Amino acid sequence: MKNVKLTIEFDGTNYHGWQSQKNAITVQDVITEAITKVTGENCQLTGASRTDAGVHALGFVANFRTSSSIPAEKFSFVLNTCLPPDIVVKNSEEVDMSFHARFSAVSKRYRYIFLNSKHPSALYRNRVFHVPWRLDVDAMREAALFFKGTHDFSAFRASGASTETSVRTMYDVSLTQKDEMIIFEVEGNGFLYNMVRIMAGTLVDVGLGKIAAERIAGILKNGERNMAGRTAPPQGLYLVCVNY
Amino acid sequence: MKNVKLTIEFDGTNYHGWQSQKNAITVQDVITEAITKVTGENCQLTGASRTDAGVHALGFVANFRTSSSIPAEKFSFVLNTCLPPDIVVKNSEEVDMSFHARFSAVSKRYRYIFLNSKHPSALYRNRVFHVPWRLDVDAMREAALFFKGTHDFSAFRASGASTETSVRTMYDVSLTQKDEMIIFEVEGNGFLYNMVRIMAGTLVDVGLGKIAAERIAGILKNGERNMAGRTAPPQGLYLVCVNY
Repeated sequence: MKNVKLTIEFDGTNYHGWQSQKNAITVQDVITEAITKVTGENCQLTGASRTDAGVHALGFVANFRTSSSIPAEKFSFVLNTCLPPDIVVKNSEEVDMSFHARFSAVSKRYRYIFLNSKHPSALYRNRVFHVPWRLDVDAMREAALFFKGTHDFSAFRASGASTETSVRTMYDVSLTQKDEMIIFEVEGNGFLYNMVRIMAGTLVDVGLGKIAAERIAGILKNGERNMAGRTAPPQGLYLVCVNY
Repeated sequence: MKNVKLTIEFDGTNYHGWQSQKNAITVQDVITEAITKVTGENCQLTGASRTDAGVHALGFVANFRTSSSIPAEKFSFVLNTCLPPDIVVKNSEEVDMSFHARFSAVSKRYRYIFLNSKHPSALYRNRVFHVPWRLDVDAMREAALFFKGTHDFSAFRASGASTETSVRTMYDVSLTQKDEMIIFEVEGNGFLYNMVRIMAGTLVDVGLGKIAAERIAGILKNGERNMAGRTAPPQGLYLVCVNY
């Protein structure tokens, strides 16, 4: 018996997120089926997080236990022959039996990409959030930096979400511009439901001048969801990596 | 009557290239239909070049004449409401009646993207040529620079192509690396059928050590198609811009 860690890239466009659910195809379902096919075993595949429908991943992490004779590092090649082209296992390796993709994670990094241009993009149509109005990138950067550090992120959690603690630490926050793309990156020890999308939506409202950058501090302190901005759409969001 | 120039971005994955043809959907067909819909006129849409099935464009150029009262610069917005999301008109403007998207062009710039990684990419699956074997990027760059200048490109033309002159001038050639992506760009006064794809395929053979970089000079001089490399697949190719 061994514990195998998979690092996975996927285009979330055609999936209802990671997590298995009734009457909808998910990334977890598709990979579980591929593992069962190559090992002949029932497979319990554990993912590092749920991701929403339409959200992408560059380095999602999952793990499963198997008695298969396939060497752990060969699983990526074997699984990729059975997976659709919008899901690719980038790496597979054997890890300690105690490794758990979700509970062992110490931090996650997300990226949110805005396309700030007059017209949408044909090539990036399901990969960015198109904002046709001019955004003040300096104000957005100023606002983003307020997220850094340890805060109660209640205002940046989907309303109606569970009552677990909402204090999280953001280790790194950046906002950069490359031509018409504005790229927001955030790495933290955990994220509440819809948190990065609400952060991103709030940054758009800052960029449009609806919310002053320095108000972010107050919104964090106040903790009311309706003070923050809209929830930005899923297609601009990428899970970049999970650190252990 | 006015002459309208369109600058177009398209994802070529779902089209049989630009040029209208029987029994296959092309980018020209789709845009022509959209113009007819908004102007109520029959439309003769002229494109800057043919492009192969699966090839993409960031700045394809086309033009058409119309008596429509729609201002030229509004056409981009109006057409985008009727176009599928994988075709976007990025700009529209009135040009001199003598402007012809193909004959007025003085140069075109193409980009070819290789993904040199162990596994393919889920997100770039229809956007790059995945090469899983290690490529010698320095040798590829050395080889690419031989394309610069005025040469007879007979060896880099699909065999059986017409007998027009095969002398072309490449004004700018570059090959750069960004993580696992290798990006070949070439700007020239004209390109023969499949020329950039054969250049790209030859560069892969150089990167794999099958063709020595310095042999490119001899292949150009010799002019025999079978001395050059394979034709690289269409999905790595982008028409970047057309200059007038």
